[in-house]
Amino acid sequence: MNQKKALYKRIENYFDRLWPIPRSITGPGFIKSLDLLSEIVPFKRIEFHTGDKVLDWVIPKEWVPHRAYLIDPNGKKRADFSKNNLHLVGYSVPFKGILSLTDLKNNINTLPDQPNAIPYITSYYNEAWGFCMSFEEYNNLPEGDYEVVIETELKKGKLTIGEVVLEGTSDKEILISSYLCHPSMANNELSGPLVLSFLCEAITNLSSRKYTYRFIIVPETIGSIAYLSLRGDDLKKKLIAGYQISCIGDNGPFTYKKSREGDTLADRAAIQMMRDLKNENVIPFNPAVGSDERQYCSPGFNLPVGSLMRTMYTKYPEYHTSLDNKKLMDFEGMEEAVETLTSIIHNIEMNVIWENKYPYGEPQLGKRGLFRSLSEKTREDDEMAMWWLLNYADGTNDLFSIADRSGYPITTLARVANKLNEAGIFD
Amino acid sequence: MNQKKALYKRIENYFDRLWPIPRSITGPGFIKSLDLLSEIVPFKRIEFHTGDKVLDWVIPKEWVPHRAYLIDPNGKKRADFSKNNLHLVGYSVPFKGILSLTDLKNNINTLPDQPNAIPYITSYYNEAWGFCMSFEEYNNLPEGDYEVVIETELKKGKLTIGEVVLEGTSDKEILISSYLCHPSMANNELSGPLVLSFLCEAITNLSSRKYTYRFIIVPETIGSIAYLSLRGDDLKKKLIAGYQISCIGDNGPFTYKKSREGDTLADRAAIQMMRDLKNENVIPFNPAVGSDERQYCSPGFNLPVGSLMRTMYTKYPEYHTSLDNKKLMDFEGMEEAVETLTSIIHNIEMNVIWENKYPYGEPQLGKRGLFRSLSEKTREDDEMAMWWLLNYADGTNDLFSIADRSGYPITTLARVANKLNEAGIFD
Amino acid sequence: MNQKKALYKRIENYFDRLWPIPRSITGPGFIKSLDLLSEIVPFKRIEFHTGDKVLDWVIPKEWVPHRAYLIDPNGKKRADFSKNNLHLVGYSVPFKGILSLTDLKNNINTLPDQPNAIPYITSYYNEAWGFCMSFEEYNNLPEGDYEVVIETELKKGKLTIGEVVLEGTSDKEILISSYLCHPSMANNELSGPLVLSFLCEAITNLSSRKYTYRFIIVPETIGSIAYLSLRGDDLKKKLIAGYQISCIGDNGPFTYKKSREGDTLADRAAIQMMRDLKNENVIPFNPAVGSDERQYCSPGFNLPVGSLMRTMYTKYPEYHTSLDNKKLMDFEGMEEAVETLTSIIHNIEMNVIWENKYPYGEPQLGKRGLFRSLSEKTREDDEMAMWWLLNYADGTNDLFSIADRSGYPITTLARVANKLNEAGIFD
Repeated sequence: MNQKKALYKRIENYFDRLWPIPRSITGPGFIKSLDLLSEIVPFKRIEFHTGDKVLDWVIPKEWVPHRAYLIDPNGKKRADFSKNNLHLVGYSVPFKGILSLTDLKNNINTLPDQPNAIPYITSYYNEAWGFCMSFEEYNNLPEGDYEVVIETELKKGKLTIGEVVLEGTSDKEILISSYLCHPSMANNELSGPLVLSFLCEAITNLSSRKYTYRFIIVPETIGSIAYLSLRGDDLKKKLIAGYQISCIGDNGPFTYKKSREGDTLADRAAIQMMRDLKNENVIPFNPAVGSDERQYCSPGFNLPVGSLMRTMYTKYPEYHTSLDNKKLMDFEGMEEAVETLTSIIHNIEMNVIWENKYPYGEPQLGKRGLFRSLSEKTREDDEMAMWWLLNYADGTNDLFSIADRSGYPITTLARVANKLNEAGIFD
Repeated sequence: MNQKKALYKRIENYFDRLWPIPRSITGPGFIKSLDLLSEIVPFKRIEFHTGDKVLDWVIPKEWVPHRAYLIDPNGKKRADFSKNNLHLVGYSVPFKGILSLTDLKNNINTLPDQPNAIPYITSYYNEAWGFCMSFEEYNNLPEGDYEVVIETELKKGKLTIGEVVLEGTSDKEILISSYLCHPSMANNELSGPLVLSFLCEAITNLSSRKYTYRFIIVPETIGSIAYLSLRGDDLKKKLIAGYQISCIGDNGPFTYKKSREGDTLADRAAIQMMRDLKNENVIPFNPAVGSDERQYCSPGFNLPVGSLMRTMYTKYPEYHTSLDNKKLMDFEGMEEAVETLTSIIHNIEMNVIWENKYPYGEPQLGKRGLFRSLSEKTREDDEMAMWWLLNYADGTNDLFSIADRSGYPITTLARVANKLNEAGIFD
Repeated sequence: MNQKKALYKRIENYFDRLWPIPRSITGPGFIKSLDLLSEIVPFKRIEFHTGDKVLDWVIPKEWVPHRAYLIDPNGKKRADFSKNNLHLVGYSVPFKGILSLTDLKNNINTLPDQPNAIPYITSYYNEAWGFCMSFEEYNNLPEGDYEVVIETELKKGKLTIGEVVLEGTSDKEILISSYLCHPSMANNELSGPLVLSFLCEAITNLSSRKYTYRFIIVPETIGSIAYLSLRGDDLKKKLIAGYQISCIGDNGPFTYKKSREGDTLADRAAIQMMRDLKNENVIPFNPAVGSDERQYCSPGFNLPVGSLMRTMYTKYPEYHTSLDNKKLMDFEGMEEAVETLTSIIHNIEMNVIWENKYPYGEPQLGKRGLFRSLSEKTREDDEMAMWWLLNYADGTNDLFSIADRSGYPITTLARVANKLNEAGIFD
């Protein structure tokens, strides 16, 4: 069994263990999930407390769900939270009582257009309770009185962020962010933190790092806002590139969503990679539909953070329903996502602005052993790359820029640039 | 009968009354036509006198045509100005005499390629006389001597411009211009001043106006030059947008011709409207083929004036012939043109540069009652527009710019921006 | 016989005389070829000496080939330099000896993919010897011992550049460059210096010249580097446009390769010409595949030099083989290349930034006799061009810029601009 197979099987194994945990933006499900991921890389905890002011927001109460279900007039248990944690509206307040079917229906959410799917619904900032079920089950509920049981707590507590910092030689930073607050959903939940954790493992294993890396796992929106309240000013100074990772678990091609500025180093590195993959799914920044990049790219911070995804939120029908489950997952594809992000980071590490010390005419390469002695009709990629480098390494173009012009991958350019540097031609 | 039907029937009624009047760049036909349009809105007269110097031009003599016709060798009256005022070359000098057919033909204009059409010909600045007739009639003229009768006057007189000024609260101005100097032609004559007059009526009825509006009706070229000699310097300081209105009466889709600069507020507002209409007929400025925008966009003035048309000059075969007549007209389409221009003006009035006071992360909307309490899979346009506004209202983007990025109409953006302003989020 | 026929027949005659001469980057073949071309225009010699340092390079020894061939085991002479000068690797050192077929094959170059072609190979900067032959002949060489005869000299000597300077009234310069160092090849050798020489003849015959013209014929790479070592700093100050001429002899459409900057006067003039020819073969600068423009456009000099070609190097299979011969040549096409380059130069000479002295509104043209007296439905190109000029001749746009906007050829614009200048409207 080769290294490759080892990784995707490890991803699947963690997926299966994380799947049943009832996560929310606070509470024991988030913590338990983060504990599991910490087996891969050691996430440090950053904690905020209920009532803390973070930017324009306030940390909400911690939510602890214990159990929730309905008993129908025939005594049958329905919408049982222990069977599928999507049945309970997230952050439901405690409730016990007997309701007629008519009254109960006001508190049941369904998706008439997807009759076999349970929707994913939350009510974080408005105290309420509710259940979710398939439209099929909803239509077959017998008339009569229902016993409603919701045992949850909303209490002063904590909101937790997981962070791994890998120091580099420069104080410039690269941020990788994902979220971990949705209950049992696959593409739009577990794929992100899984890819992030295994990417962090790969970057930990790099022999050297120029940049400092921050990998963070947050509860969506409130978590990135809390993180920015703490580190936003620092990131404005130091961040050169960042990626929001989510919806990266299915078998679709990658999608890259640009940062607000659109031409940051994050964008240039990701777009270069997409070009190498002959993948044209590059979309502009959109603040209306998105994840934590909406916070990172809010106008006050305007950070260089793009989003790497496969089939993105809102673009697949199973999104935010019980149908977003393991059947959609492609674990080899997640391994490929880890590799692709690792390559993007490699490329950023290799990106340098070189300056040719012999800019007047071409330097004579033959006398430096850099040129085949016989003229020939065909030419190798490395020779072609060398000419591009000699001409455009003028102290203004970085390797991404030369890759854009020449069409050669940055790995080829970096290898050849190092040769030119060793030969004393580059500075 | 609803309001809509009322308007297009009013337009048709004025069209029918204006049609037979023999207009030129000066003289009683222009005045009589302007009097008729002044029943809709009260055009003030600005007068220039023969010999006045206006920029590089001189106001010509006033031309008063009384009658003109030919008597053929059989005693038949032909090319009778009283039957169709295109028969007489505009600004023909008086002439009476007997000419052989051969000699007469030197003074008859035809269109061999459109044998049933009478061409429209003028000779404003070169003293001459001539007739116009269909090539069919021309070919059937019997041999022999013709009596030529042209009773016209060329005398010291006036050139008149009609103007309505609607004051706004700002001293910034918007100009709407059309011309009224062609005799009996429909699309390339009456459509322009008719749409302009009813647009002026609509803007008069606006409950409030930020900008000052100038609606002017001029004789083409010499009229706009005369107007610029009077107000050009002032317009250079105050004009933020202007539209030349002509060829706007047929049933073709709108055409928008950009101003010389191409990205003025006039252009951005019109192009936004064209986009909302899914109409791609946006063409660049062209100084060689056009109307009074050639003067407004001359390099010394370089005013922000675009042109709104339907099927434009030179693009339809009936152009500048007797075939440009009521059969081509679509009066409901002219009503729609009035509405479209009114919308463009509304949008300019609504265009504001807002600044989000909470630019660090997204502001918490739930606590301000601006956000649905339950998360849901589908989102309304107003919510989407709100996210675009919160991100891009950074003090640099006006609503047209945010409309460009987001694809949402400026009406939606303005409505939502007002809500954010009322909630204290926008400044 | 008209003038046209005279020119292409002269080109063919020189082609036939130049063909058999064994050229290299130095030596008697280059000199003899330059002598022949000097019958057309008097090329002055610029000489460098073996060992001279030129930029990062050193002038190599002069190479004088006397004879070279193989005697096969049957006594048959093969790879005879006197029959086809491609048989000997350029700059081969002297060698005499007996080699087995196996050993000899290490020094024989072939093209297995083009079995009937002799490849073109050189070894300028690495002392070696070798033969070239068709893969077919190579495969049929009989086993046994071969006599190898290479009588060449590598000695202290000269490297020569031919130059014609045509003085103009301005000190701004235009450079035309081609190379003359390949032995018997047609498109990628003789077409360039032939077109250059006849172009020089045409420009010599111009009645007046605003710019100073330098026509140079160099040995490729080392020659342009040597020339830049001498005149590079001066060219940086004075050169406004330049063209590298090569591969311009076949019957393909023109190809224009832009300069490094891409929007210099050289580029604008050539692209305008390509547009007039409805030819879209305009390609970006590429420092990896090219000729002497690689030196002119090295980042230190960054000169405004583009390349005009027909079917360019590497894009035709006969490139750098014995199949690049007279069969590929189109001598009428070379005459057309001379005419096209002459037109480009005419256009550059005519390119002026005019300023309309009457920028406020259109000037009245009728009173200056510049406008037809009767309005008419159709308009001539010259009238259209006049409107474009009046509007855009605002002191910032040159004629190439107005040609871009209007679509009218620069010849039309220049003719009309002169009329406007004579009428006192332009300055």
